[in-house]
Amino acid sequence: MDATSRTERTPSAYPYPLLIRHMLERAVSDHPASLIVYGQTCHSYRQLRERVGRLADALAALGVGRGSTVGVMDWDTNRYLECFYAVPMMGAVLHMVNVRLSPEQIVYTINHAADDILLVNVEFLPLLERIAGQLRTVRAVVLLDDEGKAREADLQGLRCAGEYEALLSAASPDYLFPELDEDTRATTFYTTGTTGLPKGVFFSHRQLVLHTIACQLALGAAAHCRLDKRDVYMPITPMFHVHAWGMPYVATNLGLKQVYPGRYVPERLLKLRTEHGVTFSHCVPTILQMLLMSPASATTDLSGWKVIIGGSALPAALAKSALERGIDVVTGYGMSETCPILTVAFLDEDMLSWDLEAQARQRAKTGRPIPLVQLRIVDGAMNELPHDGKSAGEVVVRAPWLTQGYLHDPEGSERLWRGGWLHTGDIGVIDPDGFLRITDRLKDVIKSGGEWISSLEIEGHILRVPGVAEVAVIGVPDERWGERPLAFVVPSRPGAVSSEEILQALRRAAEAGEISRYAVPDRIVFLEEIPKTSVGKINKRALRERYGAA
Amino acid sequence: MDATSRTERTPSAYPYPLLIRHMLERAVSDHPASLIVYGQTCHSYRQLRERVGRLADALAALGVGRGSTVGVMDWDTNRYLECFYAVPMMGAVLHMVNVRLSPEQIVYTINHAADDILLVNVEFLPLLERIAGQLRTVRAVVLLDDEGKAREADLQGLRCAGEYEALLSAASPDYLFPELDEDTRATTFYTTGTTGLPKGVFFSHRQLVLHTIACQLALGAAAHCRLDKRDVYMPITPMFHVHAWGMPYVATNLGLKQVYPGRYVPERLLKLRTEHGVTFSHCVPTILQMLLMSPASATTDLSGWKVIIGGSALPAALAKSALERGIDVVTGYGMSETCPILTVAFLDEDMLSWDLEAQARQRAKTGRPIPLVQLRIVDGAMNELPHDGKSAGEVVVRAPWLTQGYLHDPEGSERLWRGGWLHTGDIGVIDPDGFLRITDRLKDVIKSGGEWISSLEIEGHILRVPGVAEVAVIGVPDERWGERPLAFVVPSRPGAVSSEEILQALRRAAEAGEISRYAVPDRIVFLEEIPKTSVGKINKRALRERYGAA
Repeated sequence: MDATSRTERTPSAYPYPLLIRHMLERAVSDHPASLIVYGQTCHSYRQLRERVGRLADALAALGVGRGSTVGVMDWDTNRYLECFYAVPMMGAVLHMVNVRLSPEQIVYTINHAADDILLVNVEFLPLLERIAGQLRTVRAVVLLDDEGKAREADLQGLRCAGEYEALLSAASPDYLFPELDEDTRATTFYTTGTTGLPKGVFFSHRQLVLHTIACQLALGAAAHCRLDKRDVYMPITPMFHVHAWGMPYVATNLGLKQVYPGRYVPERLLKLRTEHGVTFSHCVPTILQMLLMSPASATTDLSGWKVIIGGSALPAALAKSALERGIDVVTGYGMSETCPILTVAFLDEDMLSWDLEAQARQRAKTGRPIPLVQLRIVDGAMNELPHDGKSAGEVVVRAPWLTQGYLHDPEGSERLWRGGWLHTGDIGVIDPDGFLRITDRLKDVIKSGGEWISSLEIEGHILRVPGVAEVAVIGVPDERWGERPLAFVVPSRPGAVSSEEILQALRRAAEAGEISRYAVPDRIVFLEEIPKTSVGKINKRALRERYGAA
Repeated sequence: MDATSRTERTPSAYPYPLLIRHMLERAVSDHPASLIVYGQTCHSYRQLRERVGRLADALAALGVGRGSTVGVMDWDTNRYLECFYAVPMMGAVLHMVNVRLSPEQIVYTINHAADDILLVNVEFLPLLERIAGQLRTVRAVVLLDDEGKAREADLQGLRCAGEYEALLSAASPDYLFPELDEDTRATTFYTTGTTGLPKGVFFSHRQLVLHTIACQLALGAAAHCRLDKRDVYMPITPMFHVHAWGMPYVATNLGLKQVYPGRYVPERLLKLRTEHGVTFSHCVPTILQMLLMSPASATTDLSGWKVIIGGSALPAALAKSALERGIDVVTGYGMSETCPILTVAFLDEDMLSWDLEAQARQRAKTGRPIPLVQLRIVDGAMNELPHDGKSAGEVVVRAPWLTQGYLHDPEGSERLWRGGWLHTGDIGVIDPDGFLRITDRLKDVIKSGGEWISSLEIEGHILRVPGVAEVAVIGVPDERWGERPLAFVVPSRPGAVSSEEILQALRRAAEAGEISRYAVPDRIVFLEEIPKTSVGKINKRALRERYGAA
């Protein structure tokens, strides 16, 4: 062997790193005239690029540079999209402040992420005034105001650097963005979880570019719900929530017209859908339900709207309702830790001829991994389980865009990544057709009489009983069985359903072999409302604390 | 600012590198039953994976490991596809030996790449016997034989390690592939060029994965010529030629049925097209012409065949002939140095309603950059030129998959990458619709009377004159004008066309403003054939040497 063949690594004298800036430049060059709409404002991509330059110039004047952190508290606006690009392109970190957290938690995340500058929608001024004194790292605040008026605010000594539009007008569009390493951190977001303090996840330029490309590949190759450049995009997942699932980057890469809805009001969302011909959105099941239930929906044509559902399980009944309205609804799966998309339940061509009922069930699964994702279900010893539609195991994943851990939390990071796989904490089965179904959260599985009972499965059955509006099932300690399921039900109106009706339905399901007989709860507790987390998920921890000893 | 915010790079404790192994594993897991056909052999992707394991095990027994180089001399076969995966997945480098080079050049490339092991189709045994004594680094030869017979060969002391199928049968499928850095070199190929020694280009795992994904994105997003999983793939660009333009990796990622045609015989190619329902191929214009001219083509349904053309300019007339037969023909552009794909001339939806003549012209352009490619036309001072359809400049590119240089040629590498952009040596204009048109090779531009004359443009006009089969235009020194164009023409049959007919056609084109009047050659030289390079390109260097002083 010749010594020359020993060179193993390619010298990278001329690297072309995977950078957010390259995505933007390409999108603007290919689609300069595509539009971005928010309220009364409408900008072309060419203007987006110019405004991104101005924003960077204005932030640089406030001391932002490589390694700085810029926090943003805003609804879904063109400004947020500008921050998606400008802040990482400067080599700074965009902290998408989770405004649904409690004020104490928001203070915690801003201090923990060490935000240097905060961009704050004036609607949050009362909150900001309340917490300003506790912010240890913030040096200045920029106000975001749809009216574009410069405002004053008493921020307990915190410097108000001015209003966003005024700063942009005064700034130069010719800011020279630095050359960056693709592993430069680009964004951070704090997950809510249902236990403990918020945990910060973080993503690099490389990770966001690869996530975007893989999403584009998945959405472009689908037999339905396929995006093309004529689509009109409107997010209905908050932009602070892991970059609105990364979809604004996808929409921009594709050159789509984009409509930003601000705060979510069902009537306004439906109006925007009609007014701008929105064809592509994504949201949590609750929002989909709200849209379908809104009085305005009766007079709105919803057909052909491609909607990706995530955040929590999509009930098949809701999927069917959406399909009946012509919505091309499909479930995605992921979490803040995973940037977030891992799987999407795009149907195969032949499944599109199934009846709506069967389609709804399939679309409500979490689907197949998108490109570049390696996904397994494993037992407690990390053995891979078969794709037989029965074996349930924890979902573990690898992909080029997963958070490398939790910010400043080495132990939590190690737990998350034990065995070299990211542990989702979700229990799932994989059907022979490759579709993943999440059956439960690992911590919500009820261990009763040596069997694992899926609380989600019981919830699904109870939800189908007429008169049931909401349901949550938890495990409560039991001397004989270890744990027993306990069901909480919110009736659609008082007295709409009885315990016995629910239990009978479950017994029938057990006799039909659809659930284990251990899975039938001993009793039903009726509530007026089920406690939720800040992002609207059922808060089982609160239920356990309140009822767990009962 | 807090010190914690200074962490600029994401720690990569849990990397998920971009590796060829991950592509294969995903493809096999998603499409285990998809088929790979070569002659009488037919394997599933599951078997492909198993055979890749066996091949690696067999090669390891011959001493191949990280940093080794394995040369392959084969036609387009399933074996070559197995090498595309097994060799790089071992951490070794696959040297796709350019079998169209002269024996001396082949010796040079094998020694220069320092191949440790050579896999050689028995059809090349006469050649191998002739050159074996000059190979300085090769330790053993594996014979590739469609009959699967173990053969003996007198290789002047070179060890014959046995026959491919026999080695695979004796090997274990459970070879444990090593964890690799994504920048590990995966493949190397020697470009022919028309001057000097062959030059080695090389690509890493990361580069091949990103090239594959970007090609998938481009092919999946196209308004026509769109690939989906029902397509059947057959390369008609040699696999040694920069991995058959990377398309076997694309086809495998998509789970397509793949048909490998061995050596190209038009009748056999057409038979395979019919027999296996081939819908996706790629080739040079000459092959397309051969297919259309083949007597068998008259009785073969060619409609719906998606064919990407590259390697040299596609004449619009040929594109139109292909369209008339229902072939969805489209031009791609790239070179060995660029892995190779840079642009593809996919039409926009509205262009698909143009008449065939207009479509053919558009499809014969080289199109728009695929995702992740940054492409400019620049003047001699590297200033970017406008996309006005008129300004001609050198095409320079950046993308994550370009060769980092030429193997063991630091000066050539520096020239290739001057100014931080890869210089293609091609002259192009970009139309307002973003389509790149290559007008010439930088070195083939004729500088006459202070004007730049495109030899390709004159060639195009001459090719349209009835009776002209082939044409080549070069610049010859001229005292008064600096250079003057000289045209070489091969008539379709002796006497089919006269000098005067050609010159008149060119003068009419000049009067119509289609070419400059300086571009009309002073004379036409008729030849029986035009000299070609080893890959079938017109060898202008040979013409210049022979006629340049005339």
